[in-house]
Amino acid sequence: MKSIRGRLGKAADEVVSYSASIAYDRRLYHYDIAGSIAHARMLARQKIIAAKEVQAIVGGLKEIGAEIERGDFPFKPEMEDIHMNIESRLAEKIGEAAGKLHTARSRNDQVALDLRIFIKDIIRQTVGRIRKMQAALLDLAGDNRRVVMAGYTHLQPAQPVLFAHHLLAYFEMLERDAGRFEDAYRRADVMPLGSGALAGVPYPVDRQSVADELGFGRISANSLDAVADRDFVIEFQAAASICMMHLSRLAEELVLWSSAEFDFIEIDAAYTTGSSLMPQKKNPDTAELARGKTGRVYGNLMAILTVMKGLPLAYNRDMQEDKEGLFDTADTLLATLGIMADTLGSLKVKAKNTGRAVARGYMLATDLADYLVKKGEPFRKAHDIVSRLVGYAVVKGKTFDRLTLAEYRRFSRRFDKDVYSVNVASALTARDVPGGTAPKQVAKALASAKRKLGKASRQGQKGGAV
Amino acid sequence: MKSIRGRLGKAADEVVSYSASIAYDRRLYHYDIAGSIAHARMLARQKIIAAKEVQAIVGGLKEIGAEIERGDFPFKPEMEDIHMNIESRLAEKIGEAAGKLHTARSRNDQVALDLRIFIKDIIRQTVGRIRKMQAALLDLAGDNRRVVMAGYTHLQPAQPVLFAHHLLAYFEMLERDAGRFEDAYRRADVMPLGSGALAGVPYPVDRQSVADELGFGRISANSLDAVADRDFVIEFQAAASICMMHLSRLAEELVLWSSAEFDFIEIDAAYTTGSSLMPQKKNPDTAELARGKTGRVYGNLMAILTVMKGLPLAYNRDMQEDKEGLFDTADTLLATLGIMADTLGSLKVKAKNTGRAVARGYMLATDLADYLVKKGEPFRKAHDIVSRLVGYAVVKGKTFDRLTLAEYRRFSRRFDKDVYSVNVASALTARDVPGGTAPKQVAKALASAKRKLGKASRQGQKGGAV
Amino acid sequence: MKSIRGRLGKAADEVVSYSASIAYDRRLYHYDIAGSIAHARMLARQKIIAAKEVQAIVGGLKEIGAEIERGDFPFKPEMEDIHMNIESRLAEKIGEAAGKLHTARSRNDQVALDLRIFIKDIIRQTVGRIRKMQAALLDLAGDNRRVVMAGYTHLQPAQPVLFAHHLLAYFEMLERDAGRFEDAYRRADVMPLGSGALAGVPYPVDRQSVADELGFGRISANSLDAVADRDFVIEFQAAASICMMHLSRLAEELVLWSSAEFDFIEIDAAYTTGSSLMPQKKNPDTAELARGKTGRVYGNLMAILTVMKGLPLAYNRDMQEDKEGLFDTADTLLATLGIMADTLGSLKVKAKNTGRAVARGYMLATDLADYLVKKGEPFRKAHDIVSRLVGYAVVKGKTFDRLTLAEYRRFSRRFDKDVYSVNVASALTARDVPGGTAPKQVAKALASAKRKLGKASRQGQKGGAV
Amino acid sequence: MKSIRGRLGKAADEVVSYSASIAYDRRLYHYDIAGSIAHARMLARQKIIAAKEVQAIVGGLKEIGAEIERGDFPFKPEMEDIHMNIESRLAEKIGEAAGKLHTARSRNDQVALDLRIFIKDIIRQTVGRIRKMQAALLDLAGDNRRVVMAGYTHLQPAQPVLFAHHLLAYFEMLERDAGRFEDAYRRADVMPLGSGALAGVPYPVDRQSVADELGFGRISANSLDAVADRDFVIEFQAAASICMMHLSRLAEELVLWSSAEFDFIEIDAAYTTGSSLMPQKKNPDTAELARGKTGRVYGNLMAILTVMKGLPLAYNRDMQEDKEGLFDTADTLLATLGIMADTLGSLKVKAKNTGRAVARGYMLATDLADYLVKKGEPFRKAHDIVSRLVGYAVVKGKTFDRLTLAEYRRFSRRFDKDVYSVNVASALTARDVPGGTAPKQVAKALASAKRKLGKASRQGQKGGAV
Repeated sequence: MKSIRGRLGKAADEVVSYSASIAYDRRLYHYDIAGSIAHARMLARQKIIAAKEVQAIVGGLKEIGAEIERGDFPFKPEMEDIHMNIESRLAEKIGEAAGKLHTARSRNDQVALDLRIFIKDIIRQTVGRIRKMQAALLDLAGDNRRVVMAGYTHLQPAQPVLFAHHLLAYFEMLERDAGRFEDAYRRADVMPLGSGALAGVPYPVDRQSVADELGFGRISANSLDAVADRDFVIEFQAAASICMMHLSRLAEELVLWSSAEFDFIEIDAAYTTGSSLMPQKKNPDTAELARGKTGRVYGNLMAILTVMKGLPLAYNRDMQEDKEGLFDTADTLLATLGIMADTLGSLKVKAKNTGRAVARGYMLATDLADYLVKKGEPFRKAHDIVSRLVGYAVVKGKTFDRLTLAEYRRFSRRFDKDVYSVNVASALTARDVPGGTAPKQVAKALASAKRKLGKASRQGQKGGAV
Repeated sequence: MKSIRGRLGKAADEVVSYSASIAYDRRLYHYDIAGSIAHARMLARQKIIAAKEVQAIVGGLKEIGAEIERGDFPFKPEMEDIHMNIESRLAEKIGEAAGKLHTARSRNDQVALDLRIFIKDIIRQTVGRIRKMQAALLDLAGDNRRVVMAGYTHLQPAQPVLFAHHLLAYFEMLERDAGRFEDAYRRADVMPLGSGALAGVPYPVDRQSVADELGFGRISANSLDAVADRDFVIEFQAAASICMMHLSRLAEELVLWSSAEFDFIEIDAAYTTGSSLMPQKKNPDTAELARGKTGRVYGNLMAILTVMKGLPLAYNRDMQEDKEGLFDTADTLLATLGIMADTLGSLKVKAKNTGRAVARGYMLATDLADYLVKKGEPFRKAHDIVSRLVGYAVVKGKTFDRLTLAEYRRFSRRFDKDVYSVNVASALTARDVPGGTAPKQVAKALASAKRKLGKASRQGQKGGAV
Repeated sequence: MKSIRGRLGKAADEVVSYSASIAYDRRLYHYDIAGSIAHARMLARQKIIAAKEVQAIVGGLKEIGAEIERGDFPFKPEMEDIHMNIESRLAEKIGEAAGKLHTARSRNDQVALDLRIFIKDIIRQTVGRIRKMQAALLDLAGDNRRVVMAGYTHLQPAQPVLFAHHLLAYFEMLERDAGRFEDAYRRADVMPLGSGALAGVPYPVDRQSVADELGFGRISANSLDAVADRDFVIEFQAAASICMMHLSRLAEELVLWSSAEFDFIEIDAAYTTGSSLMPQKKNPDTAELARGKTGRVYGNLMAILTVMKGLPLAYNRDMQEDKEGLFDTADTLLATLGIMADTLGSLKVKAKNTGRAVARGYMLATDLADYLVKKGEPFRKAHDIVSRLVGYAVVKGKTFDRLTLAEYRRFSRRFDKDVYSVNVASALTARDVPGGTAPKQVAKALASAKRKLGKASRQGQKGGAV
Repeated sequence: MKSIRGRLGKAADEVVSYSASIAYDRRLYHYDIAGSIAHARMLARQKIIAAKEVQAIVGGLKEIGAEIERGDFPFKPEMEDIHMNIESRLAEKIGEAAGKLHTARSRNDQVALDLRIFIKDIIRQTVGRIRKMQAALLDLAGDNRRVVMAGYTHLQPAQPVLFAHHLLAYFEMLERDAGRFEDAYRRADVMPLGSGALAGVPYPVDRQSVADELGFGRISANSLDAVADRDFVIEFQAAASICMMHLSRLAEELVLWSSAEFDFIEIDAAYTTGSSLMPQKKNPDTAELARGKTGRVYGNLMAILTVMKGLPLAYNRDMQEDKEGLFDTADTLLATLGIMADTLGSLKVKAKNTGRAVARGYMLATDLADYLVKKGEPFRKAHDIVSRLVGYAVVKGKTFDRLTLAEYRRFSRRFDKDVYSVNVASALTARDVPGGTAPKQVAKALASAKRKLGKASRQGQKGGAV
């Protein structure tokens, strides 16, 4: 096997550095070796190569795996990628038999295989981290189940909500994320080996047995598609982008809440840093970084979509660009899920401050309108009445509970003494619908979330599909 | 109900034109009316408003629906969006009772509802179009089942394949697309009404019954999430981007194949156009446009991801930007699926030309290598031998079948007379693995694809989930 | 001239609706007519067609222009685009001579011309709006030149700054934006007519005279490039994306500042809206929309970059996708610049609140460190000392001015009575470097900004290049 | 100076690995040291710190620079970034004086400085590579100045062009690229030091002298903007995206031209590679990779635009995400320009094949139409006549030169014997307008391009602005 350097002469170094992928695809070594072993064993079973040779191949590959683990594998850029590095090392170890490993296989289906095992592995890890982060949300919600906070729309205080209710919104987002990753897993769980370069291989291979040995759900149905397809990379990146979007929203809230103006939470010093110039600062760095890293994940999605657009079948070298962005997204997403879960774990909620925010505004305005509706006023008219009442209160500098009944009645004769029983507690309690913020509903939602999470975790541990 | 123009005074026009969405969200009218009717009926059932009033409301809404269908609904930009336009028209029609429709509802959950019904509808249509395009592929494959073509990698002729095999690769891509849309459907199929502005509504609503009436699979679990979530928009856009990517690849191939140099196909004149300057041109415009329109679909995905990044809970006005890109993507995708299916339907394959391409190159090189492997040569060495043989043949200007046995044997003593039985037919037949291009396998794959498609279409017609 | 419908038969409607651009490119009519008139006049001057015919052509085109202005031009989708609509209408009006207008011209160079005039026009408008927005910033800064505000990093109060200083940061951003648009203008200012379909025209045209008549700076140097190039569209979109990014930052600040927690500003009711459900809300809608619309501008950039990637020379139909995104970006950017300028114009700054924020934190910590540095302490050590001092003060619940000298000296013997002269005013005054927030420097910066703006506006009015 | 690990305790490793940038920002070391030296010298000149201390600082920094060059600098992840690594190493070397280097400086303005010097350096290199690639284009054009090729639109042969003319289109694209990079350079050429953390520094610094020493054109005008601005990163990325788009178009053409079907060129073996499975393949890998790498450059642009959207002033930690994408884009662009120039340098043009393509189609159709126009037929009518003539010729299987005069005259009585003088040579010669493909014009364009390039290169060597 000649190295690229040997074949090319003078322009070699430039071309090698432009086209070699060994610097980053080496992290696939484990999957590549597992795939090669399964392939070799099948070749023996099918009597395509001799059992003794396969024994040598498998032994050699295992040694190589150990070398890489130990860090003393001699990586060679001129061998371009991890596949050729391993194969050429195998030849050094076992001689001519190494040349038989590539029987009934092409680099095209080999790369597709490795990448699919990688994605499946990463999805499993991702879902695991999502579950941990959901657990962190439930813990935090559980620890603060009585904390009241302003719910916002347009970043304006809108209606009182339980802090736990707010956190449960993120639980739901992550639940959908997990679902998306699981769906992506199913579609990635397809074994491409046997597709050869593009047309299928001219050997009596047993594709299903390779799939079984490697834990794949099924084999690919079309050889051209099998080597030309990178949907599984894109679908993972799209799911990751949505998940990072969710994390960026939570990150934004952590930044807001830890500002001096909101002052709703304190993030543990482990997850904030000081300033090189301003000793008083306690910057919510992990949250900011999580928010910022959303950009790179979006960018990686856009990159692979761009790469694949308009490529004729089957494999084109452009597709080598599938890996770095994928690795970067996988690393970023896993790290961000981890750090956000830990940041949440470290959070102290300042219930006095979140409560004060609720008291301040006219957050009970909707409830006053609903009060009138229940007394018979059509909703739109009730809304208009309270709208004018708020205007009046602002001018007078009074909160609702400081208005006299006479003042109330100036706006509607339907107001009566019981208007004073409209308060934060009543507002919360009133929202007693499934998904609402009434304490009873939130308790139910928390319990249900815990059950779901427990079930998901048990399935994960049993090593279910995902 | 005051219009925005009334409230604002001088800056009104500018602000209205900046913020009104009626120009594009009017297409949601049908969903909005259906949602309002279901909501009103539930309010009556729950005795939240009187049955007689609900009767008036429902009657009025139906009239409004008819007005819009007929094109004589008086749309008012200053009413901002479709929801307010309908509600204010309802007030004109039925008076005060109209003001009760918005009881136990907010524009936030109303918008979320309308958009979810829209997405579900569009996904159903999309999957329908995908099925039609798959059918067009199978028809074309079936009509050309004996046509041989060069299979390409790196746009270099690589190995012979059946043209039908090549088309089946696209069948597989579309199959995954359908799966992704169906998964997105499941996650969109969640009824948000009852979430109010953000915290749930303070009325004894029956959310499940509204879901049932509107054909939703389930109700949302958290009110904040229900109004702040646009995952279903993004997931649809991501699935659409991948699908357009597939279509762009096929479009690229149609452009290549209809070039004078490839000349593999003829696209019907209905789908090509001439030039304003060059009378001889027959440009594959629909394919080029399909390829180009991939850009806008990617752009719309990037846009909505950008919009949602870092938004604190719950609703923010930025989210109004969820619609135009979604509508554009939906329209573009549906139209492109339709036009590509029709373009395929119009295709004539020039089997003589696709065959010539196979004869030309050294496409049987892999098969010669495999020939040697079967005679006992390790694959890598066989590959090297044939590589040198190709070099020799190129210099001599001979195709494989013109080389003498002596010439063959100069490269390996393993070559024998039976080397001449390596030909295109044998190359095809040899790839007799599941997913391979052997005629037997392709016939099997075609049959299986037809079965799958028939089953999917029957489910679609029965009005299954998707 | 046959319409597309005539040529195509049954598939016509679908193809027309997929490929016709008349729905959006009609807005180019003015540029198209101007270009055609200049072209026709040149043809007459060069004696390529007869003067009398040109007279008829020019007359007809002017009539058509008037028809379109009046709204009674009969647009026909089956004529596909604005160019063919105008040309076919011209034929109705003046007969056979109309057929001569396209002599020495192709739709390819014609489209490129129209789009370049459009871009130049839009850039002029954009720069005009940027100048108005800069003026709004300077007015607001001037009206509030004594207002002190917390300067933030990581959304944590960091050091006191003048509010005017903060606004001037946006002046600088917009200044760079204007520069980018002006540079884009220079590169767009190239006349492509005479390039024909791709190879140049076989007539003795006078390209320079057409450029002169249409006000172009120069003519294109290569015919293939002239029809295949859309750099000017992309460069505009890129500059627009950066500008929208700036506006999104300001928008974010307006949203933050108008939150109940910050409460730094009040935006006029004209630029906020209420809630359908919550009568007390005053949502900063224009700012939120401006922030949100950044997404679509980014998306349009990504779309056109995707479209142009990997297109072989010269024109491909994909390039028809250059317009809608461009128009959308142009409209969005112009509207956003306008609405943000007006929103700024309506702003009331709550100086008491911005001042309170400064008092609250330990914003003078840096100044205390600098105090120690000036007394001889190395910076890093001074930073550490003050860091510990802040920790102490937080625990004691004291602001800096409430610490006793003894307490100060517990952390460093260098502290002396003059430490009490470190205050907000001294902190501001001390930053007396060019670009710093010292009142003297800010006054200078304001004056300089006004001079720059005046000069730019005068140039704009004189009708300079941009 | 405590390391982050010291401050954080248990969560340290995770946080360090999430937030440390030393793995990639170490490549800024050279710029960081240069900036620190200039800053220190100014501090001495302004008597802010003692000359002796500055001597120690400068000496220490130079030693550190040498250590890094030699590869024996002890990088510490827990020191987070290159700035802190250098500063802490300086403290080890020179003790307490090291603590004074950060006087009148913040990490915020320091980072901005380093990144600006980096960008300026990269732009200089980029423009240099663009010039080399332009030279490669001119060499190739010059060597093949008589080669005729089909010019394409819609990938359909349209009109004959000179191959050199086609190449000159890319010269023009690169010329605009260079212009964009030079404009970006001017806007990056602004010295931010003295802006401190955000408000300016409270020391009598001499900002202009630092700018002069570091070769900056001017100093920043607003301290908040100076630390919050990353326009220069985005503008570079946008210019790089457009440049990569150009390269992707050329790459696409190289892939097409080296296909068996076009067979217009041969790329040297150094820039193609074989297949692991198919010994006959010669894949245009560098061109494919260049086309593919466009995706990552687009993605990096989208990433940084996303990061910066909606960030309030001034510095936020999200902005740390400015570097990796920038480095990746810079490396990718420089490498791609280099490899494409070299690939071009290795190209052999198969003039016989490019000529055959011209003969094949009906590429002279436009010229026949123009022939009729010159005989008095209006263009549109001439176009219709030739259109029918082509239809006839196709059916008869004749090329234009094989049609009899009688056949010609069946379509128009204006055809005469001189119609046979319409040929490829006449078609080329006729396009004798500036920018056209007439040999005379192309020769002129080549000469002019050479002059421009020579001038640009001389300016570059003289070390002009860019």
